[in-house]
Amino acid sequence: MTAPARRPRLTRAARPATFTVDAHDESGALVPTRIAGEHPLTLYVDKREVLTMMTLGAAPEALAIGFLRNQRLVQSIDEIVSVQVDWDVGAVAVTTRGGLADLDARTRKRTATTGCGQGTVFGDLMEDIESIRLPGGASLDEETLFALLNNVRLHESIYKEAGAVHGCALARGSEILTFVEDVGRHNAVDAIAGWMWLEGVDGSDKVFYTTGRLTSEMVIKAAQMGIPFLVSRSGLTKMGHEIARMVGITLIGRAVNRRYLLFTGAERFVRREPPAGA
Amino acid sequence: MTAPARRPRLTRAARPATFTVDAHDESGALVPTRIAGEHPLTLYVDKREVLTMMTLGAAPEALAIGFLRNQRLVQSIDEIVSVQVDWDVGAVAVTTRGGLADLDARTRKRTATTGCGQGTVFGDLMEDIESIRLPGGASLDEETLFALLNNVRLHESIYKEAGAVHGCALARGSEILTFVEDVGRHNAVDAIAGWMWLEGVDGSDKVFYTTGRLTSEMVIKAAQMGIPFLVSRSGLTKMGHEIARMVGITLIGRAVNRRYLLFTGAERFVRREPPAGA
Repeated sequence: MTAPARRPRLTRAARPATFTVDAHDESGALVPTRIAGEHPLTLYVDKREVLTMMTLGAAPEALAIGFLRNQRLVQSIDEIVSVQVDWDVGAVAVTTRGGLADLDARTRKRTATTGCGQGTVFGDLMEDIESIRLPGGASLDEETLFALLNNVRLHESIYKEAGAVHGCALARGSEILTFVEDVGRHNAVDAIAGWMWLEGVDGSDKVFYTTGRLTSEMVIKAAQMGIPFLVSRSGLTKMGHEIARMVGITLIGRAVNRRYLLFTGAERFVRREPPAGA
Repeated sequence: MTAPARRPRLTRAARPATFTVDAHDESGALVPTRIAGEHPLTLYVDKREVLTMMTLGAAPEALAIGFLRNQRLVQSIDEIVSVQVDWDVGAVAVTTRGGLADLDARTRKRTATTGCGQGTVFGDLMEDIESIRLPGGASLDEETLFALLNNVRLHESIYKEAGAVHGCALARGSEILTFVEDVGRHNAVDAIAGWMWLEGVDGSDKVFYTTGRLTSEMVIKAAQMGIPFLVSRSGLTKMGHEIARMVGITLIGRAVNRRYLLFTGAERFVRREPPAGA
């Protein structure tokens, strides 16, 4: 891992993840219930408003950086001088070293192709993805996958407590390097992308785990981060599958406990074979 | 129900909902697996490109209409002359009677506030919601809710078959009027909004059911459609809860079989009381 030469100045403004509200259940009993936070956070870059994200608020600085990375509004973490979150006004202010050239035109173009069903900027992403091919070399064996799934199971605190969030983890083998939960899966992925830049973490030997469905967007973002393994406990879509085949990602779905379905990129996955003669 | 005076000319271009791909499970066995479709669909209004949606494609015409309704780019179904879907080019062309005034400025303003975690246009929605208050009057009793949950359980075919989709239903009492599944919950909600316009269905005595989480966006959209009951089998977020209280929606979460949690709007909900003396 190589941390950036000049790390941005950051606030550390995580919000409480859950809140308690009263509910009544079918027996009429009062049931104090933990629910996930959800807060508007408006992103400003060099004092220009870019957009408002709805977030759990667990990792707002990494979210802002990862959003700018995944939308390719900034090319390198070194362009970012500071990321300042102020929940009193629901704002995150990013200051860049040289300004973002032509931000207006870039966000305008993006508008037209924002995928409403996916919450992201689809048109541009799709153009880029056609040039991405993930190298071979990395491998993941079945027991390591099972160990990772177990580590994830032990880790998912907010989801278990309050539901209504998606979790994403970045792992090296079975070791979870970072785990982010958010109300939108897009945010959780973006926060991991931001964390990778902040910590100088390369994706090429990593596993990306998500509780969410493997749609086109999730596969595209994993590919952009250069991560060869994408694991989900949920299902996948046809386009997620097609893009995974195209870029050469190892796609594993329905991964829970010691079960999984391996969809693409089998050459990187080592299944435990029964002992010879068994 | 009052259907619009002049119903738009529509294609009926639903895509197949599921596709089969090969996977290998943990035993090494080949497992042909049904997965949900996911297709880019670019919306053009009067030949102007507006955005690209990723959709299952089950109800593309209603989706396009409902998107325009929920983003308030059109004020009435009567403004729409035709909705033509052509999957060969992944496009849905909407023709309006008088053109959309100032579409550029309106979509540009929207850009800045697109909620990346929610896939929708948040800023403008939030401004409007402050003026919405749902009237009392409608009521829902517990046995009707249980009957609806059972009807939903019997209905959710794609989810059961392939996962990776969200389902939404519009119901009158326990009767499901329409049921839409899509890869994004935003799309499923929008398709129901479009269906309501096409069929002239008013929301004021209806129940909106969703498999998805009750985030701010879901509550806002239900309120905009004038629907007093919002039911989910999933959890909710703090902001969804706050907005539900503000607009006076009856919010029921974790609703499965004969269980639920009633969070807000209890005055419209009639719980079965045990018989006197029991």
